Amino acid sequence: MADEEKEQQKQGEMEELPVILQLRPVPAITPVEEQFLKKFRFLKAWESSMPTELFLTTYAQSVRVLLCHGGTPVTADTIRCLPSLQCVIATSAGLNHIDLTECRKRDIAIANAGDCYSENGADYAIGLLLDVLRQFSASDRYVRQGLWPVKGAYPLGSKLGGKQVGIVGLGHIGSEVAKRLVAFGCSISYNSRKKKPSVAFPFYSDVRDLAANSDALILCCGLTKETYHIINRDVLLALGEKGVIINIGRGAIIDEKELIQCLMQGEIGGAGLDVFENEPDVPKELLAMDNVVLSPHKAVLTPEAIVSLQDLLMANLEAFFSNKPLVSEVKDE
Amino acid sequence: MADEEKEQQKQGEMEELPVILQLRPVPAITPVEEQFLKKFRFLKAWESSMPTELFLTTYAQSVRVLLCHGGTPVTADTIRCLPSLQCVIATSAGLNHIDLTECRKRDIAIANAGDCYSENGADYAIGLLLDVLRQFSASDRYVRQGLWPVKGAYPLGSKLGGKQVGIVGLGHIGSEVAKRLVAFGCSISYNSRKKKPSVAFPFYSDVRDLAANSDALILCCGLTKETYHIINRDVLLALGEKGVIINIGRGAIIDEKELIQCLMQGEIGGAGLDVFENEPDVPKELLAMDNVVLSPHKAVLTPEAIVSLQDLLMANLEAFFSNKPLVSEVKDE
Repeated sequence: MADEEKEQQKQGEMEELPVILQLRPVPAITPVEEQFLKKFRFLKAWESSMPTELFLTTYAQSVRVLLCHGGTPVTADTIRCLPSLQCVIATSAGLNHIDLTECRKRDIAIANAGDCYSENGADYAIGLLLDVLRQFSASDRYVRQGLWPVKGAYPLGSKLGGKQVGIVGLGHIGSEVAKRLVAFGCSISYNSRKKKPSVAFPFYSDVRDLAANSDALILCCGLTKETYHIINRDVLLALGEKGVIINIGRGAIIDEKELIQCLMQGEIGGAGLDVFENEPDVPKELLAMDNVVLSPHKAVLTPEAIVSLQDLLMANLEAFFSNKPLVSEVKDE
Repeated sequence: MADEEKEQQKQGEMEELPVILQLRPVPAITPVEEQFLKKFRFLKAWESSMPTELFLTTYAQSVRVLLCHGGTPVTADTIRCLPSLQCVIATSAGLNHIDLTECRKRDIAIANAGDCYSENGADYAIGLLLDVLRQFSASDRYVRQGLWPVKGAYPLGSKLGGKQVGIVGLGHIGSEVAKRLVAFGCSISYNSRKKKPSVAFPFYSDVRDLAANSDALILCCGLTKETYHIINRDVLLALGEKGVIINIGRGAIIDEKELIQCLMQGEIGGAGLDVFENEPDVPKELLAMDNVVLSPHKAVLTPEAIVSLQDLLMANLEAFFSNKPLVSEVKDE
């Protein structure tokens, strides 16, 4: 067979591969794209010279699956351009970038990152909590600035063991957080949409009550209409002047302006924040505070997590095209 | 009774209280000194205008107990000035500031901080390990320097779960470290003076072998002649270019010059250091490294630990003067 014929045949085979739409790049896929291209064909909206809407309507009939990164909005308008869409596969744990109402209306299945991030997220929450209580970042700055020989011992932090820790959102990540906290000798209680029958930790249906009974709150929930600004001034005041708040969920779970006020007034004790309302912009008031640990939204990401995610994405895509249930379908967001 | 007589009587009673020598201030006692003064009389060498040796020989006959802070050397010369000394009570876990050989020769009992610091020390070791692996201090600097919006995402760290962690010194603190690491999904092995029959983790009699089989080493042992520079270039090379070393023991357990060389050459992956060979001076080469977390020797200290220590010191002193065994006697250092 001549080279040209081979190329044509390859082209023909490729076009027969199932189509997967990407609106913007999906970084987790890039390093292993070759593996996916053996089984699927990627339609990359951002590589086309067409305006996105025209691109979507042009390919609308062939698109049954949309694969999306956590930072990529999947709006109702986008979904309406895609009448054949049956499945959205997200590389994130949180789904606040996807118009879930529109998906539910159309009976579009949704998969998230499942359990890929849980252990990393939990490790990170514990790390932030330890950092706020025992001042790793602040005392590392102190040493690097040469202050130890000049000013002497750094002020003491506070012990983690014995603390009452409230977990907001006891899903994959929250459960892993609880497991770790038990080993540190903490007492645990939690808030979530509903009480979990299989969990023995005390449940608080109201997050303010949870805060009032906690030395530290760890936010592990997704961002939804219900959790938007769920941590408001009342909750922060209930947490109290020695209380610590850790956020590895989404920035807007906390009313950030109120958080800053409470920190400036000494109405809460400290904060460990991986997420912010207007990332990557971090409110400048926080930058000067030693009782705050600031992290650039990376709680769940490690090379190990990305490898599990790549496997999971492949498994979800293969399941979809074999008419099997998605491996990490999210049903009740 | 006239005031003068009362004063004389009080003075007389005080002089009958058991005497405890302090060579230098013991900071843990200061906030609760009143409680101790109800039962004991402190002889404070540093408050006397006499040269220390003269002071010691003047009071030599009355001194059966010496109470000392971790930073206060208790030399053979000091001990020889005190022929009635029967007991040294240290506020530290490590005893490298005390001439143990001289104490053993004289059959002087020694008590340390027992279990007061174990949980805090273990929390701190885990915090340092998480910080090196998941880059809390380094990425906090990144955010504070305003680099997130400019340079984008911070490079990924590495997952703690699944790591093989070697613990050097499986005493009070090391055992608490192991308990926490299990909850993070790590595999554990250890090195100590001898294999512990009650412990199921793999034991390595040679610390180089332990390093060769570990992704991270955590140093929780005391500083003795045997552990001085036990972490040398060979051990560091065995740990390898992705390996991480955490030290909450004493600075001189590591050959610090070799550690710096290995870090500069990329021969190990990173380090979390609470202790240094010449504290509070930290080698300047370390100050610029992003894969190193620097801490001003505070792993075990929290207000909670100090309260337990105060209780323990009181219990040890009462035990000694009631001819009962010391609560936290160290027998086989």
